[in-house]
Amino acid sequence: MSDLFLRACRRQPVERVPIWIMRQAGRYLAEYRKVREKAGFSTLLKTPELAAEVTLQPVIRFGLDAAILFSDILVPVEPMGVSLTFSPGPVLEPAVRSRADVERLRVPEPEETVPFVYESIRILRRELAGRAPLIGFGAAPFTLAAYLVEGKGTRDFEHVKGMLYGDPATAHLLLDKAATTLSRYLRAQVRAGAQAIQIFDSWAGVLSRKAYREFALPYLQRVTEALRAEGVPLIYFALDASHLLEEIRACGTDVVGLDWRLPLSEASSRLEHRFVLQGNLDPCVLLSIPEAISREARMVLAEGARAPGHIFNLGHGILPSTPVAHVEALIDAVRRPLPQEAS
Amino acid sequence: MSDLFLRACRRQPVERVPIWIMRQAGRYLAEYRKVREKAGFSTLLKTPELAAEVTLQPVIRFGLDAAILFSDILVPVEPMGVSLTFSPGPVLEPAVRSRADVERLRVPEPEETVPFVYESIRILRRELAGRAPLIGFGAAPFTLAAYLVEGKGTRDFEHVKGMLYGDPATAHLLLDKAATTLSRYLRAQVRAGAQAIQIFDSWAGVLSRKAYREFALPYLQRVTEALRAEGVPLIYFALDASHLLEEIRACGTDVVGLDWRLPLSEASSRLEHRFVLQGNLDPCVLLSIPEAISREARMVLAEGARAPGHIFNLGHGILPSTPVAHVEALIDAVRRPLPQEAS
Repeated sequence: MSDLFLRACRRQPVERVPIWIMRQAGRYLAEYRKVREKAGFSTLLKTPELAAEVTLQPVIRFGLDAAILFSDILVPVEPMGVSLTFSPGPVLEPAVRSRADVERLRVPEPEETVPFVYESIRILRRELAGRAPLIGFGAAPFTLAAYLVEGKGTRDFEHVKGMLYGDPATAHLLLDKAATTLSRYLRAQVRAGAQAIQIFDSWAGVLSRKAYREFALPYLQRVTEALRAEGVPLIYFALDASHLLEEIRACGTDVVGLDWRLPLSEASSRLEHRFVLQGNLDPCVLLSIPEAISREARMVLAEGARAPGHIFNLGHGILPSTPVAHVEALIDAVRRPLPQEAS
Repeated sequence: MSDLFLRACRRQPVERVPIWIMRQAGRYLAEYRKVREKAGFSTLLKTPELAAEVTLQPVIRFGLDAAILFSDILVPVEPMGVSLTFSPGPVLEPAVRSRADVERLRVPEPEETVPFVYESIRILRRELAGRAPLIGFGAAPFTLAAYLVEGKGTRDFEHVKGMLYGDPATAHLLLDKAATTLSRYLRAQVRAGAQAIQIFDSWAGVLSRKAYREFALPYLQRVTEALRAEGVPLIYFALDASHLLEEIRACGTDVVGLDWRLPLSEASSRLEHRFVLQGNLDPCVLLSIPEAISREARMVLAEGARAPGHIFNLGHGILPSTPVAHVEALIDAVRRPLPQEAS
């Protein structure tokens, strides 16, 4: 029974830094691509046996220290009343633009409406059999709201920001519904067996610090407060959010995940050393050469040793073009003890 | 003769905060769209009379405090030996991936190879006749190199980062060529009549602080040192670079442009109050309502008053969907004197 990851989350003693990889069940793995030949992305999400199968693939292949449910942060939008397709990026229809659109959104009971998520978790807990803890996940309220308003990926976030600045009351109503939905959705994941929860705030980084404080942080806090009583470690990961670290101090999780932009020692200092840190190797390093991977990974380890705790990860999801041999080189580098001068 | 902008760049007394708008000559203007009906984007770039015409449009319509040459940061890649088309995003062919590709790149004399840029500047200086100063611009070396390696816009920058991490010697050779090319290209703009130069580092923000220090900053410094003797104000604008401000202190310009992510007072403090600041209203604010535009603009002004100097601008280029009436509301708000309590 490996609980290295959970112990690290809780700042308990660990014999080495645990490692898992964002998007570890994904297209860089031949065994994943093989499953995807038979099943589209949506089918994979909604078929517990298949979702469990691909979740396990990287855990079995690499012996990673945590499994993360194969799913998508947008799963809760369908029970809210918005259709979701992937082509290949997500398309949400209809986009939520007006007050009436927001009022029409449902605040669902997820166990009734997306039972496949919870069934996947139950299967995985049986099949993992203690080999590695299982992480559940979902979006942060602002990120879910941004997708609902934009209807798809975007660079400028015109529609959601137009709402934040031009009709803040409607934005707050939307964020309130998103926060309640996500609190229920994630709490049910814990009750089905998820042993930690990661909250992805993929788009928080497009907000100014002031807008984050008004529209993102309070709703995130509602979710983390709702989950706190469940007793599992909580992780918050906001991409490209270096300018928000002073606000993130109040996010209410145990662990903060970081992209590659700042060294972990600097991030920890801006977070007042209140969090275990997770990260933060640039995923593009895995596209270089094994010597560089090993060197850069050891620098991340040395930086992580200056935080209250460290879980090794990439700074963003692993890229589909990553060679598997480079993942092996990374895992080797993280598991070898640090040389004396860097520790 | 309005030299408000130039005086602000030089920290000389100004009677009010000057304002210009990134991408002010662009698709949000009906008179620009009309020119584009007759001429494709590349034709517009390369036809001095047309480039001058669209450059003047927003200066005439709004009485802005600076004109910025209508051009594209990728103009120098063609004389380097790489073809450039827009469809609608830029496509560079062939992409520069190997050592041999980098060695093959030319380091051109821009006045011979892109004479249209300099002719546009000469026409504009005559036609502006002192109504507003003319800003020239180009890319920073890292951003130019990133485009050369990727060959197009990208989210992950796999190829250029693969080179930085996996073959740094080749990356340094490429950056050296980019820095020499850009130094010549921008110096020639000043000699043709540009009265200030803005250096756009559109992609610097994807680099870690460590990678920025190794691969971006030293080459940027070569360009700013080469331009320093020309005696015109220099502006550095890196998008999404909040994590790099401590490094940017050494960039060697008079003015630093900022996106909307941090309040100007905080950015100025991280820059040790060494720079006049330019920015930083979120362009999406212009998609909301006039009351919000006015309120947010005044907050930016109040923040800017805490820096050593302030030039009002957006935090990124104006969006094509921006209503012209909202631009007018913005300019009004910036030109009305600040109420007592905010000054």
